[in-house]
Amino acid sequence: MEEIIVKYLEKPVLRNPILVEGLPGVGNVGKLAAEHLIDQIKATKFAEIYSKYFPPQVFVNDDGTIKLVNNELYYFKREDTLPDLIILVGDYQGLTPDGQYSLSDMVIKIAKEFKVQSIFTLGGYGLGRMIEKPRVLGAASDLSLVEEMKKHGVVFSKGEPGSGIVGASGLLLGLGKIEGMKCVCLMGETSGYFVDPKSAQAVLNVLSSVLGISVDFTALEDKAKQIEQLTSKIKEAELPPEPKREDLGYIG
Amino acid sequence: MEEIIVKYLEKPVLRNPILVEGLPGVGNVGKLAAEHLIDQIKATKFAEIYSKYFPPQVFVNDDGTIKLVNNELYYFKREDTLPDLIILVGDYQGLTPDGQYSLSDMVIKIAKEFKVQSIFTLGGYGLGRMIEKPRVLGAASDLSLVEEMKKHGVVFSKGEPGSGIVGASGLLLGLGKIEGMKCVCLMGETSGYFVDPKSAQAVLNVLSSVLGISVDFTALEDKAKQIEQLTSKIKEAELPPEPKREDLGYIG
Amino acid sequence: MEEIIVKYLEKPVLRNPILVEGLPGVGNVGKLAAEHLIDQIKATKFAEIYSKYFPPQVFVNDDGTIKLVNNELYYFKREDTLPDLIILVGDYQGLTPDGQYSLSDMVIKIAKEFKVQSIFTLGGYGLGRMIEKPRVLGAASDLSLVEEMKKHGVVFSKGEPGSGIVGASGLLLGLGKIEGMKCVCLMGETSGYFVDPKSAQAVLNVLSSVLGISVDFTALEDKAKQIEQLTSKIKEAELPPEPKREDLGYIG
Amino acid sequence: MEEIIVKYLEKPVLRNPILVEGLPGVGNVGKLAAEHLIDQIKATKFAEIYSKYFPPQVFVNDDGTIKLVNNELYYFKREDTLPDLIILVGDYQGLTPDGQYSLSDMVIKIAKEFKVQSIFTLGGYGLGRMIEKPRVLGAASDLSLVEEMKKHGVVFSKGEPGSGIVGASGLLLGLGKIEGMKCVCLMGETSGYFVDPKSAQAVLNVLSSVLGISVDFTALEDKAKQIEQLTSKIKEAELPPEPKREDLGYIG
Repeated sequence: MEEIIVKYLEKPVLRNPILVEGLPGVGNVGKLAAEHLIDQIKATKFAEIYSKYFPPQVFVNDDGTIKLVNNELYYFKREDTLPDLIILVGDYQGLTPDGQYSLSDMVIKIAKEFKVQSIFTLGGYGLGRMIEKPRVLGAASDLSLVEEMKKHGVVFSKGEPGSGIVGASGLLLGLGKIEGMKCVCLMGETSGYFVDPKSAQAVLNVLSSVLGISVDFTALEDKAKQIEQLTSKIKEAELPPEPKREDLGYIG
Repeated sequence: MEEIIVKYLEKPVLRNPILVEGLPGVGNVGKLAAEHLIDQIKATKFAEIYSKYFPPQVFVNDDGTIKLVNNELYYFKREDTLPDLIILVGDYQGLTPDGQYSLSDMVIKIAKEFKVQSIFTLGGYGLGRMIEKPRVLGAASDLSLVEEMKKHGVVFSKGEPGSGIVGASGLLLGLGKIEGMKCVCLMGETSGYFVDPKSAQAVLNVLSSVLGISVDFTALEDKAKQIEQLTSKIKEAELPPEPKREDLGYIG
Repeated sequence: MEEIIVKYLEKPVLRNPILVEGLPGVGNVGKLAAEHLIDQIKATKFAEIYSKYFPPQVFVNDDGTIKLVNNELYYFKREDTLPDLIILVGDYQGLTPDGQYSLSDMVIKIAKEFKVQSIFTLGGYGLGRMIEKPRVLGAASDLSLVEEMKKHGVVFSKGEPGSGIVGASGLLLGLGKIEGMKCVCLMGETSGYFVDPKSAQAVLNVLSSVLGISVDFTALEDKAKQIEQLTSKIKEAELPPEPKREDLGYIG
Repeated sequence: MEEIIVKYLEKPVLRNPILVEGLPGVGNVGKLAAEHLIDQIKATKFAEIYSKYFPPQVFVNDDGTIKLVNNELYYFKREDTLPDLIILVGDYQGLTPDGQYSLSDMVIKIAKEFKVQSIFTLGGYGLGRMIEKPRVLGAASDLSLVEEMKKHGVVFSKGEPGSGIVGASGLLLGLGKIEGMKCVCLMGETSGYFVDPKSAQAVLNVLSSVLGISVDFTALEDKAKQIEQLTSKIKEAELPPEPKREDLGYIG
């Protein structure tokens, strides 16, 4: 079979679209942020990506119907001269290194087709300890973008993340840069122990400021409170073991 | 070499065939059910599938001759207007995720060639504990099929199986659905500790009701009794250790 | 790069050649037997097989020169109407299941080019315990070959090897049978703890009887004595631990 | 995507270039030596090699900009009739055996394009114990090269390295030899516990003698002193555990 199958539901006409990526990773920060964005702006699904690099698995919905695991692309058209958005979300990242490359390469190919010139990848930066107020760390394809992001409160900290950015959030930056695209990775600090809606909110807060979108965070805040109640109970019962250093590498 | 080699022994002409899959998996439920069905209806082998995604292995028969591990397709013609059957059985599923995709994709291609419009995949649903009366859980490509299966006693239970359906039983559903086929997975509850003819019987009982085939279960019941004698002896001697949760995910 | 590179040193004209395979495996029985045969009959190397399925490794010879790991083909011409021989030996088998398939498929392609109609694969059958007089177990592509081999002292024992034959010795049988070749696997019993020249001698004894070649075993017997001295010393010091069952599966 | 992407920054015209390889490996000896050489002779980068066989990762520079992991080619033109140089360095070797083969094969293809007739690969030879004065061991594609290297102080020691040479330093020798190139591997002895600038200096000392280049070693010596201070502190505190034998195999 083909390595990757892209099934278009429609082919929207988009104006200067910006690609936003949020796939599963550390604390599911990027996935939570991108899915919340889709919900808030009511973006429209236009393509499904199936691949032999994903697990051979279907999910069973609550009504008994099934869904082959995939990645999905949404679009959002904006008024005036504001750039439109393409948002990439999904159930999984590629299972193998070469699968990661092939999938990110395919996304870049799609992005080029839609004349995307700018990419934002969203992820979590695992610290291995609980964190009260997550900062949003950044990495970018060029220095002018670094300076621009600093104005939006993004922290560029020498030596962080020390091991670089692994996975789709890294590859889309690297492959996009080779294609001359302007690329930014926004990483919310997170413990890495739990899904982290608070970190997702921090990331989305920066992104909405950059993109000029207003986002209501109530749903994310509610999730964050639920997680906090859970984790505080766990903390009372027993402290989670200090994770090994190699488990904390950023995977976007 | 080619990734997959399909060797046809004959090319039968079939009327509206339904594809039934039963490959090795949890409790070997699907394999037992499909092989029992083949035995009972005296289906005819018409194709052998060899692949580099299977283990590099031959089996040695009791008479000293060998057999390269494979999957096999059988057909069964029925009278009147009843749809014919194609049954997929085999020694192994694909060893790797991309092998799983490639093999299931090839089966779907063959199914399309024979104008298959409906697929039933059979498997076990591992519970990690002994079970007296196995239920048959279901998942389907659309809601009308869910309702139809309920009439045959299939249980659709929210959150079961929680981790979805992994392997050929899942992929044939997922890939078949993309091709517009009507697909159902029937999963017999099983401990996951032993091969489970009782669970296979439960699954086959539903399938024969759906397909309008009468099946004699004596041979399966005999096997079930043998297994029961074995397991009751083991239970007396020592209880099997509670398996880890990750070992119990459904693999069809 | 190409998956497999076959570099011919010459293209011999051979009469009804029989292919003999002896690659590394349990007790290195097959490799020892095939290499001893090459030494004894002074066979001529005519092809080198390089592949990305082998380890990325060169060996350093005693004189400081290097050799990229490979498999090699030798030929031996015989007088009168006796069939010529092609012998396959090498440093490694393929590292992955699909590499095993691709390499064996390539060997079968070469064999067809030379109009090979008969294959003998040589290997060890690991017992997990010391063995005084190794029997030679067999498996064959058809019943008449089973009967013929019995006349040469080959043992066909129901349920042995229980897990089939894994690796090149199995695949060449399986793939060769699909091509209509007459194939036999000869497996010398071995503990699996050490390289086993005694088992190799037993295998080669059968093969030379079948092929009508006289082989001097002095060199193998000398090696066997050396190994025996080593192992008897170890046995005195401490008994080797009983290996786990899964380590003993036959790999040819 | 393509397995390997070679992005040329320029296509220099080179005279009889010699290829020098220094990629990460045991003690990072080869990488340190090649990078130091590039710094000293001020070689010019002319190509970047990206591949799905590398980790799916970007590095984040101190200024917040990113770099997709890669290998890089530099050239250095020399006066008179001295052969020019091509130097291969990089962040990683291929992750998988077949990735190693594909990447080395691509480097050999590039080398042929530039009419390279001679290759030097640099690496470390892990001893598993601290070493005062590292020797430089050698391996070569033919005996005349072995003799020539001995004149430059390279040690050819029977049985060393016993397990051969694994990785790019081995493959470039093996694949280059098949193409008729003259190939030498220079391996600096190293403990294998730390990055080892002293071993890199020993290797580079030999190489500069062979190539007729004068290299200032101050920077490497400074690094060596820093490492020595670190390791002497560690030695005082506690002796490092004796590493397992399989960890010490040479990887170039």
